Amino acid sequence: MRPRQSRRQFLIGGAAAGVGAAAALGTVSALDHAPAAQAEAPLNGGHTVPFFGEHQAGVDTSPQAHAAFVGLDLRDGVDREGLRRMMRLLSDDAARLTQGAPALADTEPELAAVPAGLTVTFGVGARFVQRAGGQTPAWLRPLPAFGIDRLRPEFSDGDLLVQIAADDPVTVAHASRMLLKDARSFAAVRWVQRGFRRAYGSTPAGTTMRNLFGQVDGTANPVPGTPGFDEAVWSGQGWLAGGTGAVVRRIHMDLDGWDALDPTGKEASVGRRLADGAPLTGGSEHDEPDFSATTPLGFPVIADYSHVRRARGEQPAAPAERIFRRGYNYDDTPVGGDVSNSGLLFVSFQADVDRQFVPIQRRLDELDLLNRWTTPIGSAVFAIPPGCREGGYIGETLLG
Amino acid sequence: MRPRQSRRQFLIGGAAAGVGAAAALGTVSALDHAPAAQAEAPLNGGHTVPFFGEHQAGVDTSPQAHAAFVGLDLRDGVDREGLRRMMRLLSDDAARLTQGAPALADTEPELAAVPAGLTVTFGVGARFVQRAGGQTPAWLRPLPAFGIDRLRPEFSDGDLLVQIAADDPVTVAHASRMLLKDARSFAAVRWVQRGFRRAYGSTPAGTTMRNLFGQVDGTANPVPGTPGFDEAVWSGQGWLAGGTGAVVRRIHMDLDGWDALDPTGKEASVGRRLADGAPLTGGSEHDEPDFSATTPLGFPVIADYSHVRRARGEQPAAPAERIFRRGYNYDDTPVGGDVSNSGLLFVSFQADVDRQFVPIQRRLDELDLLNRWTTPIGSAVFAIPPGCREGGYIGETLLG
Ligand code: HEM
Ligand code: HEM
Repeated sequence: MRPRQSRRQFLIGGAAAGVGAAAALGTVSALDHAPAAQAEAPLNGGHTVPFFGEHQAGVDTSPQAHAAFVGLDLRDGVDREGLRRMMRLLSDDAARLTQGAPALADTEPELAAVPAGLTVTFGVGARFVQRAGGQTPAWLRPLPAFGIDRLRPEFSDGDLLVQIAADDPVTVAHASRMLLKDARSFAAVRWVQRGFRRAYGSTPAGTTMRNLFGQVDGTANPVPGTPGFDEAVWSGQGWLAGGTGAVVRRIHMDLDGWDALDPTGKEASVGRRLADGAPLTGGSEHDEPDFSATTPLGFPVIADYSHVRRARGEQPAAPAERIFRRGYNYDDTPVGGDVSNSGLLFVSFQADVDRQFVPIQRRLDELDLLNRWTTPIGSAVFAIPPGCREGGYIGETLLG
Repeated sequence: MRPRQSRRQFLIGGAAAGVGAAAALGTVSALDHAPAAQAEAPLNGGHTVPFFGEHQAGVDTSPQAHAAFVGLDLRDGVDREGLRRMMRLLSDDAARLTQGAPALADTEPELAAVPAGLTVTFGVGARFVQRAGGQTPAWLRPLPAFGIDRLRPEFSDGDLLVQIAADDPVTVAHASRMLLKDARSFAAVRWVQRGFRRAYGSTPAGTTMRNLFGQVDGTANPVPGTPGFDEAVWSGQGWLAGGTGAVVRRIHMDLDGWDALDPTGKEASVGRRLADGAPLTGGSEHDEPDFSATTPLGFPVIADYSHVRRARGEQPAAPAERIFRRGYNYDDTPVGGDVSNSGLLFVSFQADVDRQFVPIQRRLDELDLLNRWTTPIGSAVFAIPPGCREGGYIGETLLG
């Protein structure tokens, strides 16, 4: 019935085949109507990020296009041994899925064949650490209350974080399902938050993301592999050595209010240009802002209330207060007559949340023009244990 | 503060620059840690699909990775002239956005620079046609009630459909927002349903999608540009000549129940192999099923209750009952202790919904083993007006 001569049939090759995925992906047909550009593009689906290593993947990994953040509550009665069983199981799932192989009890193995840069990153809350009998870092607790907060329990807290990120949304859906199924007898889903950035291949690698205000977001961020990054991000403390701390905050962005502002006002509220993210004092995106520059009338070019001035605090920023931001946009179903329900899943990694993150958030809470259009509605803090070697599991420094 | 020598800075080039997007995208930096594969991939973000033409785009367009379907209710008092104003405005927005240009009143023009194959497709419900004073196709009404239906109003019906699809989720979010803002004074959002397929570049072009049951889904589908497609899809009737009919059904898939089934049972319920989508009677994905083949014991190899046998009805399928399926997976926030909330946004296009779609759905309603794990929870029918030329607008054959 389908005119077979209209397509060329071929077997999938490339990276995915290396993980035994060829059979699962099956034969494919290049339809005549597919645009030429598509037919020629190299495949990204086979790209893998190592699971094993000193640190967990998904922190210093180039951010993938899609992420699901899942917060879980431990079930009553899950003791240290239960935690160990759970983390062994989940680590094993993650080790396989990230390499494009099905999980051990995978019920949809065909969906596992496209890793697309999948990373799975686990974090633990204070209750997890207590049940494990470990030492709880002082900062592993809900953030102090801020005046700007309108936190909702359905987006906040949790005992276990699973961050699932890949360049393919089907991969994220499948990995989420496999992991949550295996976690089910140990923990209940408390919240799921999904976010996105530009698709893989939409913009050149290394392009800073834009948030849904249209801003270039992520410019002044430590760069993995460059001096200062490791100190800012990786912890050296006890079972957390080689791990880090994660802050996940859901920040609603009032797009209607923002859209009512003119471009000058928008740029003034941040201190950077909308077009290219360059500081208002000139240059290009990665040039340093000149916080001392003034207008002919003597006002600072980068206003006192601007987000970047407030976020940075002292100039140059105290190295003690550096955080590594790795957030995602969210765009959910609008409610109550609105036409959008959007914001930022603000995610930052830092060795010590109290020392590095809290002072910044406190300054922003006191003064930041952006607060007018942004409202934190969810907040959670997790400790991200270090990575593990083959045969090991995430959390073993705490549970082993 | 950021070690500038660690990255190469360059200006974006390629397809996107052609639409004046270079300034908006700004400078980018290829970070050292970006995997080599990423640095070399050609950009897909600049890919555009023409907006103007005989038919609206987004029907016979190769399905993009992401789609948002929005159902709107017309506000009281929006008369024929109001509908005309709205459709002119929305068509103008769509014409620009799909070509990578900002909408006229675009408040985040920077987000418009990456069209990524964006299409915007409009559909109208019966009330829209009545207010426009046009003739309502007999099939433009809610589908007949089916025994399997558990329809919920928050996923059903509506006066106007906007289907927004692109290979980049930021593009979909931005286009949705611009269109819904401009529609706001004429119509209220009734529902938004988001779906996804494999990312662009994850699998070779032309690979049939897999749904979240892991099935190859979309094999026996008319192929645009081949004999029979135009007859099945495009209408020849009055103001709808060159248009089509759309059915949008939200079908919950019970993944827990499905996962309890063994692979043989899964394959029997559909009549095709999970690994590659080939018929159970052998061959490869696009080979014809042999519905007369029997097992040594005399049972049909493709069971009587199987989805493909029931969907096809007579063999070969009556040409009158051909539909063009172009659906998306959905994976929303789980509720009530579940670990997933997933399904299929079933979308089909056909010239005459009553003649082509309803008999299939009726047969499936009577018998289809898949019904055990699938439940329709939303349903809507729209007429998709034909395309328009530059200077025209979608809906002009009804409103002009
Ligand atoms: C929806 C809420 C937010 C939006 C829209 C936003 C947006 C931005 C933008 C556009 C920049 C300038 C470009 C860049 O360097 O990335 C920036 C910088 C920054 N933001 Fe935010 N931000 C938000 C929330 C936060 C929060 C909650 C924190 C931490 C508490 C934070 C910390 C920072 C830091 C540290 C910088 C870099 C400042 C510098 O050293 O130049 N931001 N943000
Ligand atoms: C969640 C619900 C559904 C699932 C999981 C599903 C899955 C599938 C699968 C796996 C196939 C075989 C491969 C293919 O040709 O695409 C198929 C075929 C088909 N399905 Fe469905 N389907 C669903 C709902 C529907 C509905 C609601 C209709 C229309 C009322 C429909 C109509 C068809 C048709 C016409 C075929 C092709 C049959 C042939 O000629 O071989 N399906 N479906």
